[in-house]
Amino acid sequence: MKVGVVYKLESSKLAEEVERFLNAREIEVELHHIPTPSLEKCDIIVTIGGDGTILRTLQELKDPPPVFGINTGKIGILTHSNPENFREWLEKAVSGELEIEEFMRIQGESKNDELVALNEIAILSVSQARLIEFEVHADGNMIDKLRADGAIISTPLGSTAYSLSAGGPIIDPYQDVICFTPISPFRIGFRPWVFSGNRRIRFRLLPLRDAVAIADGYKAIELSAGDEIVARKSDYPARFFKIEKRIERISEKIKVLR
Amino acid sequence: MKVGVVYKLESSKLAEEVERFLNAREIEVELHHIPTPSLEKCDIIVTIGGDGTILRTLQELKDPPPVFGINTGKIGILTHSNPENFREWLEKAVSGELEIEEFMRIQGESKNDELVALNEIAILSVSQARLIEFEVHADGNMIDKLRADGAIISTPLGSTAYSLSAGGPIIDPYQDVICFTPISPFRIGFRPWVFSGNRRIRFRLLPLRDAVAIADGYKAIELSAGDEIVARKSDYPARFFKIEKRIERISEKIKVLR
Amino acid sequence: MKVGVVYKLESSKLAEEVERFLNAREIEVELHHIPTPSLEKCDIIVTIGGDGTILRTLQELKDPPPVFGINTGKIGILTHSNPENFREWLEKAVSGELEIEEFMRIQGESKNDELVALNEIAILSVSQARLIEFEVHADGNMIDKLRADGAIISTPLGSTAYSLSAGGPIIDPYQDVICFTPISPFRIGFRPWVFSGNRRIRFRLLPLRDAVAIADGYKAIELSAGDEIVARKSDYPARFFKIEKRIERISEKIKVLR
Amino acid sequence: MKVGVVYKLESSKLAEEVERFLNAREIEVELHHIPTPSLEKCDIIVTIGGDGTILRTLQELKDPPPVFGINTGKIGILTHSNPENFREWLEKAVSGELEIEEFMRIQGESKNDELVALNEIAILSVSQARLIEFEVHADGNMIDKLRADGAIISTPLGSTAYSLSAGGPIIDPYQDVICFTPISPFRIGFRPWVFSGNRRIRFRLLPLRDAVAIADGYKAIELSAGDEIVARKSDYPARFFKIEKRIERISEKIKVLR
Repeated sequence: MKVGVVYKLESSKLAEEVERFLNAREIEVELHHIPTPSLEKCDIIVTIGGDGTILRTLQELKDPPPVFGINTGKIGILTHSNPENFREWLEKAVSGELEIEEFMRIQGESKNDELVALNEIAILSVSQARLIEFEVHADGNMIDKLRADGAIISTPLGSTAYSLSAGGPIIDPYQDVICFTPISPFRIGFRPWVFSGNRRIRFRLLPLRDAVAIADGYKAIELSAGDEIVARKSDYPARFFKIEKRIERISEKIKVLR
Repeated sequence: MKVGVVYKLESSKLAEEVERFLNAREIEVELHHIPTPSLEKCDIIVTIGGDGTILRTLQELKDPPPVFGINTGKIGILTHSNPENFREWLEKAVSGELEIEEFMRIQGESKNDELVALNEIAILSVSQARLIEFEVHADGNMIDKLRADGAIISTPLGSTAYSLSAGGPIIDPYQDVICFTPISPFRIGFRPWVFSGNRRIRFRLLPLRDAVAIADGYKAIELSAGDEIVARKSDYPARFFKIEKRIERISEKIKVLR
Repeated sequence: MKVGVVYKLESSKLAEEVERFLNAREIEVELHHIPTPSLEKCDIIVTIGGDGTILRTLQELKDPPPVFGINTGKIGILTHSNPENFREWLEKAVSGELEIEEFMRIQGESKNDELVALNEIAILSVSQARLIEFEVHADGNMIDKLRADGAIISTPLGSTAYSLSAGGPIIDPYQDVICFTPISPFRIGFRPWVFSGNRRIRFRLLPLRDAVAIADGYKAIELSAGDEIVARKSDYPARFFKIEKRIERISEKIKVLR
Repeated sequence: MKVGVVYKLESSKLAEEVERFLNAREIEVELHHIPTPSLEKCDIIVTIGGDGTILRTLQELKDPPPVFGINTGKIGILTHSNPENFREWLEKAVSGELEIEEFMRIQGESKNDELVALNEIAILSVSQARLIEFEVHADGNMIDKLRADGAIISTPLGSTAYSLSAGGPIIDPYQDVICFTPISPFRIGFRPWVFSGNRRIRFRLLPLRDAVAIADGYKAIELSAGDEIVARKSDYPARFFKIEKRIERISEKIKVLR
């Protein structure tokens, strides 16, 4: 068994502790402070950091192994343990005692590029305070044409991230749906749409202004007039060791966000 | 084959036309201007009215036969034809040329009563401008405790009805989810939740004030302190003859609602 | 000098303490556990309770004397002291050391009745989950015609009460404006309006369904099709002994409401 | 009398028509296709374009003369006539038959720079999809500390512009208030504040990320950690020839925006 450990530089000591803990169980360990696609060959990934560390790691991986998160940040909804109690839970993870859950990821394709996101693909104007104009289609059906600062195409897990700030609903993480939420739309009667996860959501940029599509806040591709992003459920979900009462944890996070 | 026709009194002439049209095809017809549970024994139900006529009819039926709606009202998202062109489409429906689609219904159980709804179960204070207090649980997980004018537990089809007015998202009609939206919540940081259709959503009324639970605007049961409504996906969906581009029709309705 | 003391029954002991405290300063005291219009003849009103006690007291008075509130409830934005420290502040109030501030009240006139409110006049459907339809005019200019569960016409002080729950903004208490906020409007593109306090806001009920207008949650008048409520700034403001940092206190209350 | 005419290049023919019309009345005319501060010395400014042309012109002027707008764009709420009927109304304007109305402008001061705006000062993150953190103070009272994509400090006239898209209320144009609306706030329980026009609203940028402050979409200044923008009512209002039923025109614009 091989475990990849992704850690933030300020947690290198904790990373070594994790390494020793795993080596003592005769598990091979790879340490990475920058996530790379090679992590895909590991049997398990351990992240040391916050939800952001997990998001960045998963972006590098086409078909990610299961993730175990040690939380060194603020409230996380994806992490499994903290620096104090990681041994107990990591022991269970590597010995196969913890169930593995799958969560939908979203992929976005443009002419030349591809993005994958666990939370959202945000499409934003290149100029602050300047609108972009776009159409939204679902499986070939035109849903709307609108002007806005941007738009967010989010997964259920991402519904409590950027989408929430833009006015989106909270979505059950175990559901396969794609949520479309405009950001500061010029017309005031727009509402978020929750589409079936089987639909292809097509975002088509109209000539008003260039835009940029950003996956989980990290990876970006540029869009010009006429360019499209076709978003759909990825064939390769994220996999996480099971957390008890995940929906209660989301509910707790929301209370903190008020 | 037997077809039940439910019509509003002002459309009795149209109901007779429909009867003659069906009789000419050797189909037995039952005319009802008030829907009754006996309609369940028909092979098809034809409604003459608006979406409201369909909602009221389905409330009477445990396991409803497929519905064909002739729209005499304003914009309908459930109806199939209008008084002018019903022959063409009804012909297809009775001859088996039209596919049948199923849509989730929601059922709500209290101590002594049961409700079923295609759009929503709304739970509202018995006194205007006076809050009720309640807890919301999903599968035994406490989601929140809040004070509000009321709350709406809606199906995907109901997401464009009362839930929309209260701030809920628009939900793909082909998805199995339950949407929970509070009405004018006292605390301002509450957002609608979109739960998996497999969850049991438990609404528990706290002692502040009595409430009433109303299914699709018609059927009501009273709730006192400590009473609960347990809402879940009904085992018996609504069935409708297929409408082309249903999601575009919803999108058109939303534009009219702005 | 004569001081009227309005107290909730459970605070009768505290009311006697206040009476002794004032009598010792040779101030005449009238005790009321139900507020009456005769309180208008007092020089000062002391309330023992929460913001609700103040609201109910002011509703009885055409031209109210200055109010000093002793808070026995939860967070109040109108009260001046609590049961522990009332002596220090009441001393200052009766000796003229505290400035008096005026806050706009709103009055609503229908055909036969009149209401006055410090927070809001809420107009609501008589039937739960059933819309009313109405027009809103400002100084004879038609602003909109809409269907909703109801509408709230609020003062700046009332902006953090019912209006906030319905989606209204937070308004500087020292401003003279009238805020109009619909409750769960059927059409989704409606926003609250903040009108100049000099305008006459006319609410005209259309024939869909009867309504009830409720001032500050207590006094109600019934409205039928065609009936109107004309709301405008009252000639008689509420007067309160000055509270330091009133706007910070409102900001604190909002944080608690999240 | 001297009239300054500001026109968009594509309207140069119309500008010449306006010049001829005014010269025939022995009025001196200055033509500008780019607005300059020298326009302040004119007695009247005529703009040919849309609301944007007026916004850009007023930004150059400390103490602006009254404006008369000929609308060549879409719906304008500031313009007075269109290319077809400008003669009738401009005749009235130059002969003193039209009243002049004043509308509040807002000025923002940072360490080294100053901005003036008729609609709003928007403060936005320099990086798309990345939050800024800031405090808001009103007259020295801390209102809130929050993280968001940005914030909008708007005038009443600006309430139907960018502020509306971000969730702000519609404000009576004749009122002196300053509206503060966060853009996609991270915490979900924030509401717009409507402050008295006499307050100084202090926006203080915290170290998370740099920002840019943009007045009416055109003029920008950069902000780093610790920098502040102090916004207050400008001593020099905008002046416009009176439009009948201005509030109805705003209400009509809102209907178009749905």
